[in-house]
Amino acid sequence: MAKNIEQNMLKMAAQAKDASKTLARASAKRRSLAIEAIADALNGSKDEILRANKQDLERASTNKVSAAFIDRMSLNPQRLDAMVQTLRDIALQPDPVGREMESWVQPNGLQFSKTSVPLGVIGIIYESRPNVTADAAALCLRSGNAAILRGGSDALASSLAIFAAIQEGLRATEMPEGAVQLVAHTDRSAVGFMLQGLKGQLDLVIPRGGKSLVSRIQRDARVPVLSHLDGICHVYVHKDADPEMAVEVVLNSKMRRVGICGAAECLLVDDKCAADTLPKIVDALHDAGCELRADAAARKIDARMKTASADDWGREFLAPILAVRLVRDLDEAVAFIEKYGSGHTDAIITDNQQLARQFQAQVDSAIVLHNASTQFADGGEFGFGAEIGIATGKLHARGPVGAMQLTSYKYLVSGNGQKRAE
Amino acid sequence: MAKNIEQNMLKMAAQAKDASKTLARASAKRRSLAIEAIADALNGSKDEILRANKQDLERASTNKVSAAFIDRMSLNPQRLDAMVQTLRDIALQPDPVGREMESWVQPNGLQFSKTSVPLGVIGIIYESRPNVTADAAALCLRSGNAAILRGGSDALASSLAIFAAIQEGLRATEMPEGAVQLVAHTDRSAVGFMLQGLKGQLDLVIPRGGKSLVSRIQRDARVPVLSHLDGICHVYVHKDADPEMAVEVVLNSKMRRVGICGAAECLLVDDKCAADTLPKIVDALHDAGCELRADAAARKIDARMKTASADDWGREFLAPILAVRLVRDLDEAVAFIEKYGSGHTDAIITDNQQLARQFQAQVDSAIVLHNASTQFADGGEFGFGAEIGIATGKLHARGPVGAMQLTSYKYLVSGNGQKRAE
Repeated sequence: MAKNIEQNMLKMAAQAKDASKTLARASAKRRSLAIEAIADALNGSKDEILRANKQDLERASTNKVSAAFIDRMSLNPQRLDAMVQTLRDIALQPDPVGREMESWVQPNGLQFSKTSVPLGVIGIIYESRPNVTADAAALCLRSGNAAILRGGSDALASSLAIFAAIQEGLRATEMPEGAVQLVAHTDRSAVGFMLQGLKGQLDLVIPRGGKSLVSRIQRDARVPVLSHLDGICHVYVHKDADPEMAVEVVLNSKMRRVGICGAAECLLVDDKCAADTLPKIVDALHDAGCELRADAAARKIDARMKTASADDWGREFLAPILAVRLVRDLDEAVAFIEKYGSGHTDAIITDNQQLARQFQAQVDSAIVLHNASTQFADGGEFGFGAEIGIATGKLHARGPVGAMQLTSYKYLVSGNGQKRAE
Repeated sequence: MAKNIEQNMLKMAAQAKDASKTLARASAKRRSLAIEAIADALNGSKDEILRANKQDLERASTNKVSAAFIDRMSLNPQRLDAMVQTLRDIALQPDPVGREMESWVQPNGLQFSKTSVPLGVIGIIYESRPNVTADAAALCLRSGNAAILRGGSDALASSLAIFAAIQEGLRATEMPEGAVQLVAHTDRSAVGFMLQGLKGQLDLVIPRGGKSLVSRIQRDARVPVLSHLDGICHVYVHKDADPEMAVEVVLNSKMRRVGICGAAECLLVDDKCAADTLPKIVDALHDAGCELRADAAARKIDARMKTASADDWGREFLAPILAVRLVRDLDEAVAFIEKYGSGHTDAIITDNQQLARQFQAQVDSAIVLHNASTQFADGGEFGFGAEIGIATGKLHARGPVGAMQLTSYKYLVSGNGQKRAE
């Protein structure tokens, strides 16, 4: 069995490599048409997809899984419409391949052109979220990359139904079927083989899921990984913050959705404005059903908050819980974020422009916001169209990863016979 | 002893991390001044450095090392002058940190600014080339990164003497001494600990040296590595090539320096121009002392060439030897390069502009040249100032890696209280 999986994976990788060459040479229009054809095929397969999803949900409900897990893997006509629309949006995106990123001429007359190219073959390993099957396929096609998808086994029937529509769209536009492939083995060794056995054949692996999935992949992978572990986002309310804006932005940062990586997990309040502003924030968050866990100094100002324990700092609650702490000044806020943050997204609320610039310069996170909600940490909100995730590493892409970030570049150098002097 | 090395390495990493924060916040001017101060200190330490280099050379000569090895580690007043000049050039380079790479405004009024930032702490592992100690330090300072240098043990005395000048320059400009550190342990376990034990503390490791060093580092590293293994560069002489240009560019691509990664290792000649052009190329290369190893078809045209064996294709000779082969057309040339090339640098010689564009689009290498020598594969020739190497991977930086390529970016997002809608 394991031998069989290996052989299948090697075959998929070889087909993906072949397909990636076709994709790299296909025009932007041809790749757009393929994505649109997939959207059409998805639209025409709604019944099959919903039926498959029902099977997955019935099977999952006999296991012990959380309501959030069930919600993430559930499809309905509205969610399918949104999936189709996302694909149509991606088809309309400006093409990230073949862009001249820079060009210049050297004194010897050599002309340099830095031009974007696809990465090649991208593996995407995700949990039981069927929509990722469609999104990831479309983002890879948009960026000229072949994709090998491996979704959570609980949603396998849904993924297979969506994948059938993807294949239909590829066939309809005469794209190689190897351009998007789905690993149908539920055996975990398939993932292990992807991460190690396909070294040199996968140009990139992107894990999309919870911390345990991502950290396992980071640990095991012998192929390059683009990922983020935690979204431990901080909001710092500076003394020069507009109190009303502070209340609203903190509320939105925490409560719009508590389960996403851009949700705020810790509030830092300047001790010089805490007496005024903090009780208003507590009112709003308590009204919205959020539990607050505060340090002693903050509780002196508003004793309605619970007492934070040491492990509440730097914790990703992903729940309606917020840690709260007073800080003396910008330096203390930055140092705290440096110690407890995860380099994902952090925000300052202040009307002091100079201080905001200082915060943005000093906080070493992929996204540093001023006077706006941390929930904007999202490729769509950045204007990137769909995203495949948010990267917190500093290499290659950082922040939201859309089609543009799934490219590399090469240098085209043109001359008229230049030879290099000694 | 090993315990001692580990503790030292951990201490160095912690100091580097601290220093990297200072560097990231230091102005471009302050970092320029530090580089200039190091250049001054090097200039004032020439005697000490040459004395140390003499010790290294005497010790090395008692071991069995090649003449090329001795040449690479040898310093003399001219080479020291060049080293000092390189530093002064790097000090004058435009600063790669804090550049606004892109900026835009979303319909909701949020202002986005993609801004370059240093990577953090960079480890550089290199062979016995003392000049890398100075170059790498300067490129890291220019890009706001702290550096941990580990040079070849044969050149340790030279590196220590150069490092003393680096420390003098840092002190003179009140930069933290942790900004540039040198691993003085000749024990190989120091490298092993850098690659694995400093996971999470080194943002990037760059190996600089021969294939065995690089492949060992790629295999062992648990930290991100930016590297290239081989420079198996091809020159394709198309039938529409200007014969004289073909001769000169091939000669320069192969023979200007045979030991560098941009040296051509294989010549592909269109069979439709081979009868005319190939003998001229053979004349020129033989005159220059180059051995030619050809396939049967090429030897039918010019029997002065030796017979190539199967392992001469895709081989990095790094010597005055060139593999030669006839090809039918562009497709065959591209397919051959895809099979045997290393994704480093390849060139086409032709007067057919459209075909040249096709070659540049299809060959999947970091640098694809038209009518110019492969020996231009060099950061200096690209206008990047000094380079720390040439990357052949597709992630992060590809091609020559100068100070600009040693940066990442973050997104600064500014609003006036925007909250994200449901």
